[in-house]
Amino acid sequence: MDKKEVKVMQKILNMNDKIAEELREELSKKNILFINLMSSPGSGKTTIMERTAHEFGTKMCVIEGDIQTTLDAERVAKAGIQTYQINTGPFGGDCHLESGWIKSAMEEIEMADLEIIFVENIGNLVCPAEFDVGAHVNAVVLSVTEGEDKPLKYPLAFQNSQLCIISKTDLLPYLDIDINVIKENIKKVNPKMEVIELSAKSGEGFQSWFDFLKRS
Amino acid sequence: MDKKEVKVMQKILNMNDKIAEELREELSKKNILFINLMSSPGSGKTTIMERTAHEFGTKMCVIEGDIQTTLDAERVAKAGIQTYQINTGPFGGDCHLESGWIKSAMEEIEMADLEIIFVENIGNLVCPAEFDVGAHVNAVVLSVTEGEDKPLKYPLAFQNSQLCIISKTDLLPYLDIDINVIKENIKKVNPKMEVIELSAKSGEGFQSWFDFLKRS
Repeated sequence: MDKKEVKVMQKILNMNDKIAEELREELSKKNILFINLMSSPGSGKTTIMERTAHEFGTKMCVIEGDIQTTLDAERVAKAGIQTYQINTGPFGGDCHLESGWIKSAMEEIEMADLEIIFVENIGNLVCPAEFDVGAHVNAVVLSVTEGEDKPLKYPLAFQNSQLCIISKTDLLPYLDIDINVIKENIKKVNPKMEVIELSAKSGEGFQSWFDFLKRS
Repeated sequence: MDKKEVKVMQKILNMNDKIAEELREELSKKNILFINLMSSPGSGKTTIMERTAHEFGTKMCVIEGDIQTTLDAERVAKAGIQTYQINTGPFGGDCHLESGWIKSAMEEIEMADLEIIFVENIGNLVCPAEFDVGAHVNAVVLSVTEGEDKPLKYPLAFQNSQLCIISKTDLLPYLDIDINVIKENIKKVNPKMEVIELSAKSGEGFQSWFDFLKRS
């Protein structure tokens, strides 16, 4: 690559960060908390959103990011809350969301009664962590089925986030997984990270998550 | 983006494809089967490699792709087979492997007794599917814990592969997942895809996998 290209790339990244910073400030002024959920595919983000919608109702809204389909948005919308779907498929199948997408989605949102906006990022534990979408809180959802070593193998997602939700804890009795090892590995890559354990199936641990949202 | 950049990007992609094609031909001449395993993080690829190594022994070798750590290579190497670790972390944390990486790794491999080379790609259901690494068979590993909708949401990985290994079937009794719906969704995005169901914990289904490898 020659210098010219690197320069262009820098410009694109800066534009992402600039829009992200503006979004964060705008939402802070409106007293709306913006949370960016990142994870591997199938960690349980959408099910967590469904349960959370039953607690917060129309005070929250969800922006779903997927390469294809509106399946997740349809699931969450059933809870009667504002839901938006971003599909990156028609735009090259991007593997992450950028702040420009979120800004466009936010322009469609009716903000008056909102207290929390969630973004469910593309299911990908690598690329989304590289892009600031303007959230106040970045949260990684890690299913216990994914194994103990994931924080060590995908450190950036954990380093660029403030919260880790360890999900699907109801499956622990059927796995050769020690949740304490997962937590030790999280601390190794991000000692300050807050950790919440929950099961979207049984509902266990959700009170801690709701408490986190209320005090954030 | 201006035209110049698009041109450069095209050049990079072509170089990847050119090296991939050369690798595939070279291994065909040597009667070595090259399989590229792609999946989300924590789908069970490494455990499948461990069990497969106990069947094929030194006839197989594994190239592990990870952003960070040599944990997977250390696990597989315990089976007494040739194992190589590619870490993309020091090179920008690339979210996928390209054929150039594989070519470099292959130069280190002692090929004389080999019948199969596996690449365990970076745990990411999105980006690796875009890059031909020179394999004869691309295989997606999908854990039943990831949910029924993943083939629809991440179609490229399924469209660019010939085989889907549905893993962790031992967990089905504890999930609200119908494996037939997973298989229907696979057929929707890739009607020709071969599907093998297995559990690396119980060993169930591994004979089908070994049979697939022996006839490929």
